[in-house]
Amino acid sequence: MIRRSADPARRFAEPPMPKIVDRDVQREEVLLATWRRIARHGAAGVTIRGIAEEAGVSTGFITHYFRDKDEVLAAALQLCNERVSERVAARGQGLAGMAALRALIDAVLPLDEERFLTWQIWLSFWGRSGVGEPLRREQRRGRESWRGALHRVLGEAHRAGEIRPDLDPSYEAERLIVLVGGIGLQSQMQRPRSFRRRAWSYVEAHLDGLMGPAPRSGAALPADSDTTVTGGSP
Amino acid sequence: MIRRSADPARRFAEPPMPKIVDRDVQREEVLLATWRRIARHGAAGVTIRGIAEEAGVSTGFITHYFRDKDEVLAAALQLCNERVSERVAARGQGLAGMAALRALIDAVLPLDEERFLTWQIWLSFWGRSGVGEPLRREQRRGRESWRGALHRVLGEAHRAGEIRPDLDPSYEAERLIVLVGGIGLQSQMQRPRSFRRRAWSYVEAHLDGLMGPAPRSGAALPADSDTTVTGGSP
Repeated sequence: MIRRSADPARRFAEPPMPKIVDRDVQREEVLLATWRRIARHGAAGVTIRGIAEEAGVSTGFITHYFRDKDEVLAAALQLCNERVSERVAARGQGLAGMAALRALIDAVLPLDEERFLTWQIWLSFWGRSGVGEPLRREQRRGRESWRGALHRVLGEAHRAGEIRPDLDPSYEAERLIVLVGGIGLQSQMQRPRSFRRRAWSYVEAHLDGLMGPAPRSGAALPADSDTTVTGGSP
Repeated sequence: MIRRSADPARRFAEPPMPKIVDRDVQREEVLLATWRRIARHGAAGVTIRGIAEEAGVSTGFITHYFRDKDEVLAAALQLCNERVSERVAARGQGLAGMAALRALIDAVLPLDEERFLTWQIWLSFWGRSGVGEPLRREQRRGRESWRGALHRVLGEAHRAGEIRPDLDPSYEAERLIVLVGGIGLQSQMQRPRSFRRRAWSYVEAHLDGLMGPAPRSGAALPADSDTTVTGGSP
């Protein structure tokens, strides 16, 4: 809070810095309020008016920072993805290969309230064809950053002989994205306690497959393979 | 369409049957219009007015059949789940064990427009804490029916020696729900063609793990085990 002097001259003499910081904080307050609205109503159910109510500001305050609802939503998603990236970087620090992989996955699994909220936000943006381009772009950016991180540590694990030599790190990164996404999805439909008990067991069962002996039919398919995958469809 | 006679007496003499059928058709039209709105705007962004516009009926027509928006959404989700159940039953007919398992999974994977729309609808309902009880109930019912079907065919595969004897069919059904959910989620974020090429490869890589030799750390955990799963968290 900036204390304002009653003297107009002194007031204008105030250094601008604290005010800018204050604005950044206020902008973040709006985005965190947007998170809470998304969790309750879904991204599509969010309104500028609802966010203003939640953040305790006027709708004019929000439209001062953001052009429209899509821009608020994209900024809220961006903040959410930034927080995840920071968590991923912090947990992975000093680790490599499989240890880093486990740390990365743990940073994203919905095992506490904040990470659960992250999944509520992500899921509310997916599955809608009507979202605007700023949102699409931020979705792609978030996914690519996550894929890149998984690919990097899987490559390390591969070179260190921690995972099967017949596996392709790029394809396995995709498989892990599918797995972690599936876990995030299930976290929304089960009781938190029993779910948390299982989330890591799903990951370990998957990682065991990467470390164990090659399966008999050799299904490992390179991500950039030109082979058309048609098998299995009855 | 029922042709109405200009003579009021004849009009009342019409047998009621065709009219009831007509109403069922109209009700389904409303629900299919609701699907399309959900795909575009998300479940939370759907309005009675929007559905009416999409279906080409009055809002009064909709409120005649449904108490409120939540009831329309629950009915739309129920219709969606019924269609999936019918597809699952039709494809699995005459099959058992692994062959039935593949057929079941194929019935749900987002490999064509209708199944892709199914995932758009499902995803738009998940991740929201503010949905009403009719919707929650229908979500649970759909999930239990899917889990039951997977459990049954995995049990058959287990008894027939088609999957590893150390696996627990109930736990493996949960793992498959996670996998298929993750694939459904990814289908929303990638280009349809390249995605379709990969969807079955993810499934086959997973099924190979069920059929192949037991992994070295023995991560298979029975679903009803009382063991607290904490492993892996760094």
